[in-house]
Amino acid sequence: MRTGVDVEVREVGLRDGLQSVSTFFPSAEKIAWIRAEAACGMPEIEVCSFVPPKLIPQFTDAVEIVAAALEIPNLSVSALTPNLKGALRAFETGVHKLNYVTSVSESHNQSNVRRSTDESVEDFRRIVEARDQHAQAANTRLGVGLSTAWGCSIEGAVDPDATMRLAGRFAEAGADELAICDTVGYANPTEVKALLSRVVKEYGDGVDIAAHFHDTRGLGLANVYASLEAEVFRYDATLGGLGGCPYAPNATGNIVMDDLIFLLEGAGLRTGVDLDKLIAVREIISRNLPNEALHGMYALAGAPKGFQSTSQVA
Amino acid sequence: MRTGVDVEVREVGLRDGLQSVSTFFPSAEKIAWIRAEAACGMPEIEVCSFVPPKLIPQFTDAVEIVAAALEIPNLSVSALTPNLKGALRAFETGVHKLNYVTSVSESHNQSNVRRSTDESVEDFRRIVEARDQHAQAANTRLGVGLSTAWGCSIEGAVDPDATMRLAGRFAEAGADELAICDTVGYANPTEVKALLSRVVKEYGDGVDIAAHFHDTRGLGLANVYASLEAEVFRYDATLGGLGGCPYAPNATGNIVMDDLIFLLEGAGLRTGVDLDKLIAVREIISRNLPNEALHGMYALAGAPKGFQSTSQVA
Repeated sequence: MRTGVDVEVREVGLRDGLQSVSTFFPSAEKIAWIRAEAACGMPEIEVCSFVPPKLIPQFTDAVEIVAAALEIPNLSVSALTPNLKGALRAFETGVHKLNYVTSVSESHNQSNVRRSTDESVEDFRRIVEARDQHAQAANTRLGVGLSTAWGCSIEGAVDPDATMRLAGRFAEAGADELAICDTVGYANPTEVKALLSRVVKEYGDGVDIAAHFHDTRGLGLANVYASLEAEVFRYDATLGGLGGCPYAPNATGNIVMDDLIFLLEGAGLRTGVDLDKLIAVREIISRNLPNEALHGMYALAGAPKGFQSTSQVA
Repeated sequence: MRTGVDVEVREVGLRDGLQSVSTFFPSAEKIAWIRAEAACGMPEIEVCSFVPPKLIPQFTDAVEIVAAALEIPNLSVSALTPNLKGALRAFETGVHKLNYVTSVSESHNQSNVRRSTDESVEDFRRIVEARDQHAQAANTRLGVGLSTAWGCSIEGAVDPDATMRLAGRFAEAGADELAICDTVGYANPTEVKALLSRVVKEYGDGVDIAAHFHDTRGLGLANVYASLEAEVFRYDATLGGLGGCPYAPNATGNIVMDDLIFLLEGAGLRTGVDLDKLIAVREIISRNLPNEALHGMYALAGAPKGFQSTSQVA
């Protein structure tokens, strides 16, 4: 984690947000968004997905976007891959972190990446090997997102023990980070605190633990607070709450980055992000996606009187 | 608290919601709303305010509304009063609980009820005496709402010690319940847990402790979860998030009752309220206030697959 930062927030709007948006977001505007958010102090941005461009044309420009993002100083650049093939394309770019995804629920994994969770673990082992042998990827860290950890829109309830077992297999296979994900907005703060406490206790010494919430049923920020209680200090979010999952019906809305930062800074936890500067960046999204609703209560209500964020960028 | 209920939720939309709405909500429709919500298992409803009708014409029918609500079995009927004069009107009705309000912030108290907090405490002592001497009010419990406990739109930050001192004075003066209120949506879950833990420890043995949040900056339900951690089990909310405070600019939006119940029931805490029946009651608000935006994510997204509320009403 960057020096002087207590909690690492990561913008995933360019990936999790845009993957469900059919309008192509022009490459130059993606780069403008990334630069503007980096200038607010955002420590990490997931800038694209290395899915097959035929499947999601939004990410046709993945290589170009990563290259532009890597030129920005003090920004950790990450990208997503669903498989080895995407990983090999990503490694060529020298991206700082590559995030791989597997659903804890077998049905969701089949629907999302068309293979069993066993096959997903095997694929990840091959990605680790490929990274270790790849000249440009020597410093590329590997994250794993465990989707549907608190419930699945196909199977319903998901056993926390299943998440723990899968987390263990990925940790053993060489994941540098495990992101526990409420892909469809089912999680409850009580369950979040319980599961994340176990994950942190079991795997937190060797692996970075992160959390990823959707606000589908309004509990996203309550789940963040529950995660803080479990000593998780890495959170995905999207500016203005852009986002969803194309395979999870109604799962619209990552948690809102702006409100997340208000929560964290209000608790005295330094994010390194200048919240009032960040609010102005929303305009880049709205001018390119005028038909997408942007969310976020802080942007509407403004700062409380006398509120001082600890993180301000000159 | 009602038998079989772990957490008491209280609908305050007919008071905190309607006080900022200039359109008169017809009395028969108010009564329909109260009956419909009571039929979902709602244990307590704050049905009106005994403010001078000239000040807020919405509450001209206060006496009639209380009388109708008192006929509903198994419903605790409460109302608000800003002063002794309103209390005397309320006592005539035999209302079950009367809620008095004082702001911790002197400026907000002056703006809201035009007196100092010292004078508010003195006024409350007179209300307790009046209750004790009033034939119809022998069983009327007295609640006190401490507004702006986590910040004030006029003064900014509010000292937690000031809230503790004022809570102590009202406990000593005979309050049966203390509701700690984030009137303007400034509270942060870390501060909420800290302050409410102190309140519960200091006054929780003799007095019921409740919490009242607005979702102005998106942290309302995170603040509820923080309050549960502080062992507070009584929450105000409004169906569809109707509400605000006429004296607190931008403080629109009590926390959404529907999402609150989803949080609680998902955590295995019984509210006694049938959530899916409750969602249908939103229609009574929208047909009477077509220009008021209703909030709530659960109402949009529906129940998670396999989700079973513990509270269902036949």
